[in-house]
Amino acid sequence: MAESTIVILTDFGDKDYYVGILKGVIRSIAPETEILDLCHGIPQGDIRAAGFALQASYRYFPARTIFLCVVDPGVGGPRRPIIVNTEQHLFVGPDNGIFSGIYENEETYTVYEITADHYFRKPVSRTFHGRDIFAPVAAWLSKFIEIWKFGEAIQNPIRWEKLILRRTGEREFQGHVVYIDAFGNMISNFPASDVEKLATQRNLTLAFYLKGSEAIPFYLNYSLGPENKVFAVPGSSGFVEFARQNSSAAAATGIRCGEVVTLKLM
Amino acid sequence: MAESTIVILTDFGDKDYYVGILKGVIRSIAPETEILDLCHGIPQGDIRAAGFALQASYRYFPARTIFLCVVDPGVGGPRRPIIVNTEQHLFVGPDNGIFSGIYENEETYTVYEITADHYFRKPVSRTFHGRDIFAPVAAWLSKFIEIWKFGEAIQNPIRWEKLILRRTGEREFQGHVVYIDAFGNMISNFPASDVEKLATQRNLTLAFYLKGSEAIPFYLNYSLGPENKVFAVPGSSGFVEFARQNSSAAAATGIRCGEVVTLKLM
Amino acid sequence: MAESTIVILTDFGDKDYYVGILKGVIRSIAPETEILDLCHGIPQGDIRAAGFALQASYRYFPARTIFLCVVDPGVGGPRRPIIVNTEQHLFVGPDNGIFSGIYENEETYTVYEITADHYFRKPVSRTFHGRDIFAPVAAWLSKFIEIWKFGEAIQNPIRWEKLILRRTGEREFQGHVVYIDAFGNMISNFPASDVEKLATQRNLTLAFYLKGSEAIPFYLNYSLGPENKVFAVPGSSGFVEFARQNSSAAAATGIRCGEVVTLKLM
Repeated sequence: MAESTIVILTDFGDKDYYVGILKGVIRSIAPETEILDLCHGIPQGDIRAAGFALQASYRYFPARTIFLCVVDPGVGGPRRPIIVNTEQHLFVGPDNGIFSGIYENEETYTVYEITADHYFRKPVSRTFHGRDIFAPVAAWLSKFIEIWKFGEAIQNPIRWEKLILRRTGEREFQGHVVYIDAFGNMISNFPASDVEKLATQRNLTLAFYLKGSEAIPFYLNYSLGPENKVFAVPGSSGFVEFARQNSSAAAATGIRCGEVVTLKLM
Repeated sequence: MAESTIVILTDFGDKDYYVGILKGVIRSIAPETEILDLCHGIPQGDIRAAGFALQASYRYFPARTIFLCVVDPGVGGPRRPIIVNTEQHLFVGPDNGIFSGIYENEETYTVYEITADHYFRKPVSRTFHGRDIFAPVAAWLSKFIEIWKFGEAIQNPIRWEKLILRRTGEREFQGHVVYIDAFGNMISNFPASDVEKLATQRNLTLAFYLKGSEAIPFYLNYSLGPENKVFAVPGSSGFVEFARQNSSAAAATGIRCGEVVTLKLM
Repeated sequence: MAESTIVILTDFGDKDYYVGILKGVIRSIAPETEILDLCHGIPQGDIRAAGFALQASYRYFPARTIFLCVVDPGVGGPRRPIIVNTEQHLFVGPDNGIFSGIYENEETYTVYEITADHYFRKPVSRTFHGRDIFAPVAAWLSKFIEIWKFGEAIQNPIRWEKLILRRTGEREFQGHVVYIDAFGNMISNFPASDVEKLATQRNLTLAFYLKGSEAIPFYLNYSLGPENKVFAVPGSSGFVEFARQNSSAAAATGIRCGEVVTLKLM
């Protein structure tokens, strides 16, 4: 069978050698498996940001890619180590809600609790399951060990309440800021295609509002946006983003992840 | 034919999953191509810094290396996507001047405007051509698709005015700071070998001046430089650099990219 | 013979293209060798932090892994370039003490001074031996050039005085903080297993003290630690760490690398 790829997502940052250790553990078990970095700059312990980063990127990778996800503030506590098997991809990490976006996107998937500790590095530390459990399991999976050998399927993985969009008035909708990137772009959960349709309707004007803000106009294209003002655009992730020309919209507004976004139609 | 390598240069930083998406797109098209990172820490939208980083590093890579360069503040506007083909290397990115150093270094090169949109990811977003145009084109190039299939050769790619060194007096020359690295070393466009020759001539003393500075002495070797003072040395990039022992010369002087450097012979 | 892997450790950070150049140099010499990053976020010139990062991680990599280590504040001065050959691994870098932890861990090892300059990139710069000496030597080593061809064995590599644990009273021990990670966890040189044994003895209470601190309690597990207080735990590196729930213990205490840690038994 062909070689496979492990893609690593962590909140370890780039200062330390912890990501390096994950690669060493994988390489020691699976000499032929390719190792790629998805991103290690997730804010420490921010499961929601990690979940969004994973949801926004996994579908760009080919079938059989294995995602090793170590954003694990509950390490050493009772949270379970799991494998998620979807039609195309495999995910290894803690059962803390980080895979909620996968459950949301995929029509079918199976979740296995990892219990077969003969695949673990021994002794298993209390603080670094990335090294001792998740990386070894991802490495063995990449060598085509059958998934059921790692443990039994479970029915109740942790899944966050979705940040949903809701109608809050005859001509008013409320959503949320779900991710803020290093450019200071604030990604919302308003689907870009729906808002584009509204924006191109005759006799209809729309405006977004963030906490304490004036009306924020919507443009179809980043380069059409005004200088020195926050504006809304269809983002590359498929959702409406709030941006600013050549500077940080997040810094300019002080808005954080999770805050409310209101859309008003006039 | 042998496998090839794609080397990625962006201003995406390491906080987000955007570089990861580029890798996924490449891997989905070209399973055998190696993917390496050149650097993702270019200041956001700083085309000049990106151009310098590329110019300073591409010749260390073997023939047939493909450079995927996504520092693209004009994304969504009229700037063209291009491929630059030199004797040894290939470059894919926006036509915004980022390849000026390549045009300067190479005796012969051809620039193609990318128009063959059947190689693109669809739908093409307005804000992430790295994902939808540049990464797919680099991936298809790595599979040895002939370059002319992506579009026609053009004669007028954007090329910055070179930051040139000029004589400003009988015994005075002016150049510029062209790059500042994370160590706070300030790289100028004074060729190190020319200055070394001057510095070892009899009966000739030389000194550099930065904005508002006293005379800055030139040493042949970093470890010869004084403690607690800024000094000039031949840098590893082939140009004179301004440095400080174990601390940041840029922070000590407040000098930024683009500022004038004066050399006086006495 | 099988392909081999070069793992790179530097203090270059992620802003610049210097790590990219190392990869280009390796790839130009050794097209088949895998290149992995250990970490590039070592504080600039901090040989002790680099030595700890290397010591804490090299044993997770398979036999024949070559570590290319470029934390080299004395570049251009008299320090020697060396290769360290242990039973399992190879290390290439400056003889500035960075390999002290390897000498401490390994029963047998040989150190070679690199003198065979036909393996170097020419001309050798005075400021970037990573590019001109260490990366080429690592690349040639990965192609199975015999080690003795690079130079002669030496007997006196630089080795730091070990930060040792010592008894300072009948029921008192002193050690040190040896590494602080990006999470603000402070790793000491108290072996976790010894402290765990003491902590589970009847009729014995133990407490740690950092500079100016109150008694710091020891917990067997990170998730057992109190909110809003610094506590001690067995760390994944095999040593006692000082941590804080979801925040930085280093920031909360102002403690730096090298400071004294006292353990009192009561």
